[in-house]
Amino acid sequence: MPPIAKTPKPPYYAVIFTSERSAGDNGYGEMAARMVSLAAQQPGFLGIESAREEIGITVSYWADLESIKAWKDNAEHLEAQSKGRSSWYTHFRVRISKVERDYGI
Amino acid sequence: MPPIAKTPKPPYYAVIFTSERSAGDNGYGEMAARMVSLAAQQPGFLGIESAREEIGITVSYWADLESIKAWKDNAEHLEAQSKGRSSWYTHFRVRISKVERDYGI
Repeated sequence: MPPIAKTPKPPYYAVIFTSERSAGDNGYGEMAARMVSLAAQQPGFLGIESAREEIGITVSYWADLESIKAWKDNAEHLEAQSKGRSSWYTHFRVRISKVERDYGI
Repeated sequence: MPPIAKTPKPPYYAVIFTSERSAGDNGYGEMAARMVSLAAQQPGFLGIESAREEIGITVSYWADLESIKAWKDNAEHLEAQSKGRSSWYTHFRVRISKVERDYGI
């Protein structure tokens, strides 16, 4: 997984995906890696950050809402979303947010 | 650390804090726990989610920008921010974003 994402100057969008996993892998690891690599090929993709302990947090960054919608509707991603709902996650939340300001070192 | 945050209906704000830690604890663990507990007492606080692997991601949720500003200016938090810059983090990024939509299971 890549380190802190190098995003452009705001505004841009962040999709905050927080999840709790069910027990067992059930193909999750392979699909998760594939989704990161596939997301990175989509128009408007700006970066991704991810970490998991008790919960998993993945934040992906996008140029606009249209890019987010197109990625949500990607056929392979739809299949992953379906498996996420049926077997990989006991709970998850997706929050779509507009980044207004950022700073750091 | 608590699980997935139970946030109200959007709009609300998310502060996405992504960091890379330097080696050694140097008081970090104790201060991090204290900051989570102190943040939860602030006006406008809605929840917090956190996970760390290669990088750490902490997302805190707030009712409005004024609450975020007040928490940033909290005296004890200012001290933690200073230690964060000087010794705990090699890199970090803070992104202030407005959550427009959310869904999940």
